[in-house]
Amino acid sequence: MADRAPRPLSRRSVLTRGAGAVVGGGLLGGAAGYAGRGILDDDGAAPDWRTVADSRVVGAATEPFHGPHQAGITTPPQAHGAFIGFDLATGATRGEIQGVLRAWSQDAARLTSGRGGLADLQPELARDPARLTVTIGLGPGLFDAVRMPERRPAWLRQLPAFPQIDQLEDRWSGGDLLLQICADDPLVVSHAARTLASGVRGVAEQKWAQRGFRKAVGTDPTGRTQRNLFGQIDGTENPRPDDVDYDQVVFSDGRSADGQVQRWMRGGSSLVLRRIRMTMDTWEEIDRTSRELSVGRRIDTGAPLTGTHEHDPADFDAVDDVGLPVIPPESHMARARQRHRGEAMLRRPYNFDDPPEPGKISNSGLIFTAYQADPVRTYIPVQQRLAEQDALNTWTVPIGSAVFALPPGAPEGGYVGQGLFEG
Amino acid sequence: MADRAPRPLSRRSVLTRGAGAVVGGGLLGGAAGYAGRGILDDDGAAPDWRTVADSRVVGAATEPFHGPHQAGITTPPQAHGAFIGFDLATGATRGEIQGVLRAWSQDAARLTSGRGGLADLQPELARDPARLTVTIGLGPGLFDAVRMPERRPAWLRQLPAFPQIDQLEDRWSGGDLLLQICADDPLVVSHAARTLASGVRGVAEQKWAQRGFRKAVGTDPTGRTQRNLFGQIDGTENPRPDDVDYDQVVFSDGRSADGQVQRWMRGGSSLVLRRIRMTMDTWEEIDRTSRELSVGRRIDTGAPLTGTHEHDPADFDAVDDVGLPVIPPESHMARARQRHRGEAMLRRPYNFDDPPEPGKISNSGLIFTAYQADPVRTYIPVQQRLAEQDALNTWTVPIGSAVFALPPGAPEGGYVGQGLFEG
Ligand code: HEM
Ligand code: HEM
Repeated sequence: MADRAPRPLSRRSVLTRGAGAVVGGGLLGGAAGYAGRGILDDDGAAPDWRTVADSRVVGAATEPFHGPHQAGITTPPQAHGAFIGFDLATGATRGEIQGVLRAWSQDAARLTSGRGGLADLQPELARDPARLTVTIGLGPGLFDAVRMPERRPAWLRQLPAFPQIDQLEDRWSGGDLLLQICADDPLVVSHAARTLASGVRGVAEQKWAQRGFRKAVGTDPTGRTQRNLFGQIDGTENPRPDDVDYDQVVFSDGRSADGQVQRWMRGGSSLVLRRIRMTMDTWEEIDRTSRELSVGRRIDTGAPLTGTHEHDPADFDAVDDVGLPVIPPESHMARARQRHRGEAMLRRPYNFDDPPEPGKISNSGLIFTAYQADPVRTYIPVQQRLAEQDALNTWTVPIGSAVFALPPGAPEGGYVGQGLFEG
Repeated sequence: MADRAPRPLSRRSVLTRGAGAVVGGGLLGGAAGYAGRGILDDDGAAPDWRTVADSRVVGAATEPFHGPHQAGITTPPQAHGAFIGFDLATGATRGEIQGVLRAWSQDAARLTSGRGGLADLQPELARDPARLTVTIGLGPGLFDAVRMPERRPAWLRQLPAFPQIDQLEDRWSGGDLLLQICADDPLVVSHAARTLASGVRGVAEQKWAQRGFRKAVGTDPTGRTQRNLFGQIDGTENPRPDDVDYDQVVFSDGRSADGQVQRWMRGGSSLVLRRIRMTMDTWEEIDRTSRELSVGRRIDTGAPLTGTHEHDPADFDAVDDVGLPVIPPESHMARARQRHRGEAMLRRPYNFDDPPEPGKISNSGLIFTAYQADPVRTYIPVQQRLAEQDALNTWTVPIGSAVFALPPGAPEGGYVGQGLFEG
């Protein structure tokens, strides 16, 4: 394991130094005291909890289903997400598969606007969509099932194995179809998932389902950069619409790295989904300094070790008094950062914290998602570098992997994936 | 199975009648159209989503840890809950067990006010407590471990078996200690659970952990009566502080049904926790009428079948044109409703919707919780009736069961359970 985390990490030093050292030192900012009426005192301007709790403000918000791109990709991440992989039944016909895509699109349009699905027996659960988005993905196998292998984007295949790190389980991997269902209310996610998944049985059989969460609405004014279960601010260096053209980075013009063109994928994207276990037990054995070195950023602010604020640019050349790089070259960010524009991916991760398997005491990690025009160009080289060396690998284990094409969005009356079958 | 659901239920009638019949009929209320700027149009007065999302209003709200009763019992239910059962290590001493209770109380006081736990390496995750409550429970076995069996409340023992319905699994049952951790933010729940559970290893070993959710803050202005995954309004007939004295019903005066007195339990309560699988597949085969008959209430409003509004009193004597009772005597509510004041329990359930076991397509249900002064007097007779006959049994299967004494709350500087070891 030494080769994965070359810099010696001083384990338990904080715990043995005594707890005071952790709690002091200004880490807690404005939250050290609280005002007694049940609201911490540094946020006087916001509406109070009771006003929000007595309202439907979170529930009533909607994200449109129809449009040039599918929702759920560049949508500000909702608090809850479910990812469901399906395998097509043997012998499912092209018509039946089109039927699944049509039914999902129809129901998604209804559910995301607060109406029950077409055959919904409990439309009350759909009334408050809480920014529900439904994103539909096509796995590599689908193109054989519909007998259109020539329409499969060149990049649409499972990732290569990364034997240095992978401990993949079939129960979290692969799939011919994907539903990604996100909303700010966990019950809405359950209901939409159930409505969409149960309506297609016989043609598409659920292979796996995983659920995750980010901070609740009204707890994380920083918005997109959530904290993960390691306490890290996760999502800082993400392409942002103000400095990157999503149509170049996230959405496809139909072209693959090899020059092949799939016109029907114009405006679409791809999803690489990795289920990554985070081993809380061993993470908790290392001190804050070691944690910060493993990523290259501070735990409190998320700033690079060479900066002060979260979004300060990192200086990978800076060295300390003894000439060692301030941001270790083996740190996660030094290894992951893009080497050229073509490597930019949009990350939108969800935490999972599921009931432990019998005999285990934790079952936590990240449902890591990366969206990009072409994962062979973008994702694979980054993942390759991280598999070879990344200080974080000591505490993270990929246990699931899947890749999907996300077709462009559907216009009203159309369905997601329709272009595949036309022209 | 016929004896469990005596009234013939007309399966699939809605589905076969065609979907239009479900969607019409005014079920959708004001949510049928939406206003375009992303907020459904029937709630103009509330703050908008962006204002809430940009604030800490949900995160900054707190519930006090100290007080005569433990928090998390009569506290308005938070959106997320974790329940963790621990077994004491063989040979754990009384002093070590007191140490666990003291450490949990100290850390709970810190975490619920937005500070990290004493040895917390990621206090940032504690900053926004989101109404975090930590409720500590003592299982029957603890009293033997501390060699004070005479102090065990007479009612503190596992429930009797209910062979008609139980399919209990050890991995969800029993425990010498309980942590109930609830907050409006799922990440806060994870962090508090981790901090508290990992700090006591060696003395208390985690036996099981389960997590559940209710609707998010700002999606459910009805407050306490959540909807469960069957779409039912769940929590209507619950003792309310305005018409029931919680000190009689929910909190203990130390006396058990058999006249025995445990002074240290004055102001305490008990928790019966049942993990109940809900079989979504077969539930979805029955129509709305059958669903409503199985409980005795309407799906849309939650009103009793003899009334119009959720809180209308039910008329169990009313009969229809052909002389049949409008609320079937075998319906869940007719069987569950209290026969006398002593049967009143406070229910505070959480939904679960976990990743399905390999080969299964759903893993959903209710983490059913009942709080009462004395479960032998209150819970067991009700559960006995339901085990014997309850239309809902066709779709619900208890798979876990545990009972805990919840000591009174701790004053500042004290710890939960302290009274047990004194006087
Ligand atoms: C459990 C696993 C992982 C954890 C806990 C994690 C955590 C983090 C953290 C804390 C950061 C720094 C803040 C930020 O810019 O978001 C980061 C950055 C990043 N991560 Fe990960 N990550 C994980 C897996 C991955 C994987 C599998 C990939 C892609 C193969 C990846 C790609 C990136 C990229 C591209 C950056 C931005 C680097 C930069 O430009 O500075 N991460 N990650
Ligand atoms: C998954 C299992 C269960 C489901 C889905 C369920 C659902 C419901 C629903 C929909 C109601 C009507 C609304 C209300 O008053 O809250 C209700 C009422 C009630 N339930 Fe359950 N329940 C379940 C298990 C239990 C269990 C195990 C008990 C106790 C042994 C219980 C005790 C009660 C009581 C006391 C009432 C109020 C009855 C009245 O006074 O009208 N329930 N339940």
